Amino acid sequence: MIPPKELLRFLQKENNFVIAAHISPDGDALGSSIALSMALESLGKKTIVYDKDPVPEFYKFLPGSERFTNSLSTLNSQLSTLVLLDCNDAERAGIEKLQFASSAVIDHHETARDFGDVKWIDPKSPATGLMIFYLIKELGVTVTKEIAANLYTAIAIDTGTFRYSNTTPDVLRVSAELIEAGADPSCIAENLYETWTDNRFRLLLKVLNTLEIYNDIAITHVTLDMFRGAGAAISDTETFPEFPRKLKSIKISALFREIENNHYKISLRSKGRDVNVAKIAEMFGGGGHSNAAGCKIRADFKAAKEALLKAVREIA
Amino acid sequence: MIPPKELLRFLQKENNFVIAAHISPDGDALGSSIALSMALESLGKKTIVYDKDPVPEFYKFLPGSERFTNSLSTLNSQLSTLVLLDCNDAERAGIEKLQFASSAVIDHHETARDFGDVKWIDPKSPATGLMIFYLIKELGVTVTKEIAANLYTAIAIDTGTFRYSNTTPDVLRVSAELIEAGADPSCIAENLYETWTDNRFRLLLKVLNTLEIYNDIAITHVTLDMFRGAGAAISDTETFPEFPRKLKSIKISALFREIENNHYKISLRSKGRDVNVAKIAEMFGGGGHSNAAGCKIRADFKAAKEALLKAVREIA
Repeated sequence: MIPPKELLRFLQKENNFVIAAHISPDGDALGSSIALSMALESLGKKTIVYDKDPVPEFYKFLPGSERFTNSLSTLNSQLSTLVLLDCNDAERAGIEKLQFASSAVIDHHETARDFGDVKWIDPKSPATGLMIFYLIKELGVTVTKEIAANLYTAIAIDTGTFRYSNTTPDVLRVSAELIEAGADPSCIAENLYETWTDNRFRLLLKVLNTLEIYNDIAITHVTLDMFRGAGAAISDTETFPEFPRKLKSIKISALFREIENNHYKISLRSKGRDVNVAKIAEMFGGGGHSNAAGCKIRADFKAAKEALLKAVREIA
Repeated sequence: MIPPKELLRFLQKENNFVIAAHISPDGDALGSSIALSMALESLGKKTIVYDKDPVPEFYKFLPGSERFTNSLSTLNSQLSTLVLLDCNDAERAGIEKLQFASSAVIDHHETARDFGDVKWIDPKSPATGLMIFYLIKELGVTVTKEIAANLYTAIAIDTGTFRYSNTTPDVLRVSAELIEAGADPSCIAENLYETWTDNRFRLLLKVLNTLEIYNDIAITHVTLDMFRGAGAAISDTETFPEFPRKLKSIKISALFREIENNHYKISLRSKGRDVNVAKIAEMFGGGGHSNAAGCKIRADFKAAKEALLKAVREIA
């Protein structure tokens, strides 16, 4: 993986950066942003690290996570250079109204929009974090322990800690190098997967108890009452649809989350390469990746479920 | 990691091997055995692959898993060379009554016994599979797609697919090489983690619903009635104690499995480096590793639980 010369020159030339990632940031967005900020600052440049949404509690272990701000109100953006990470248009980061002096985009998502003066978009890259790793090396920056922890987390989260099909030899070799630079794989895994609150765990059990199986589709749901009863938030349910995937008979796992009366946010996860859930989500105005996508349906639970099952039958 | 010259000469010299691993074989025992069998046969040698217990259903995806036999009754063991894998005394493999012409031991467990003419025991190795990888290379055997899938599985299972603290740079670099040789990481992960039966999943939910928390100890249990009701076997519950570990507040997860009236088999899992559960298990005549151990207690559930909690307090 070789970063474009144009991007290197751009980063070397500019001095005041706003690094911004997509809303609802995940480990790849967060880790990539912090690592790039640390790298640019080690070159004597100034950076502001922005996300519209706060850093989720369980990502606060990332060294440098306190760099994030969710306000750019005091910034004169016209004097700043934007680096957009893990997404490729300003709207995904919620900063479409700001004017920057110039902008670069570094991303690995498929649907690329026409945004940015300099672009490095590589849908074949398993994670933006992997691209940042090569970029940092090319800039001649030493990968510190802190940078290593951020990039390891970014790569781990987007490869399901090396369980998804994007786990390439390159992913493992770069991760080996990051361990040598100081990343602690078990500490990172523990922070990512084993820091649940009691409320979240109790809610998981309640949600899994709602499991219904329709052929190879697992449907679970969570109501507003269940959220209230557990004192849990919608972000607590992020990984819930992974669990029914354990069932051998299941190809799609769908979690229906009630966000208001008769309005459901649906997370779709598929196994293997047979089913592209992004196509199903798109039928309801949503989107995502082949194995993980989401959409919203305005209907009561029964009608929403039937609409989804019908869509799956049409796609299959 | 360098295999001892003596072991290489021993394997090169002998021609009729019995490769045997420990009872209740896991992915490291199975994958290492099959890979070594394939390697030795490619050198023109004869091998029998033995385990006293059958290959668990969800490991039958391993190419060559049909090589396993669980009977040596027709064998003249005195004409055969034993290679004991992933354990270091014949009793752990249930073959202590057989006499072999000679024997070698390849293992990474800590408590080494005085068994075997030639030994390679490296407790620092994350998996026996990693040692077999280096051995095969040293023997000049090409790592085929089939060998790669077996060794990748062996290494993956013993490192929690790269989540445990034994995930070294070497582990990741060898795994990268195994992917290049044909191992499919997502296919292996799916087979290892996402091929549950409905009964197993339903039993998990019932078991998790028994969760009790005592300070930083999570206790779950499964009764004979629950096993019968779910049509599930004790091996179905192998990974259940992993789940309560997700709770941030928990340092030890203990699963009590009723194996007969007033007799419990207890699996212990700990998080981090603070608690050595092997020491707790040893107090009841059991054993294991620092983060995963097991023992049995003869008592009713309440008394067994109290005995365990008392032992934890004594160790802490």
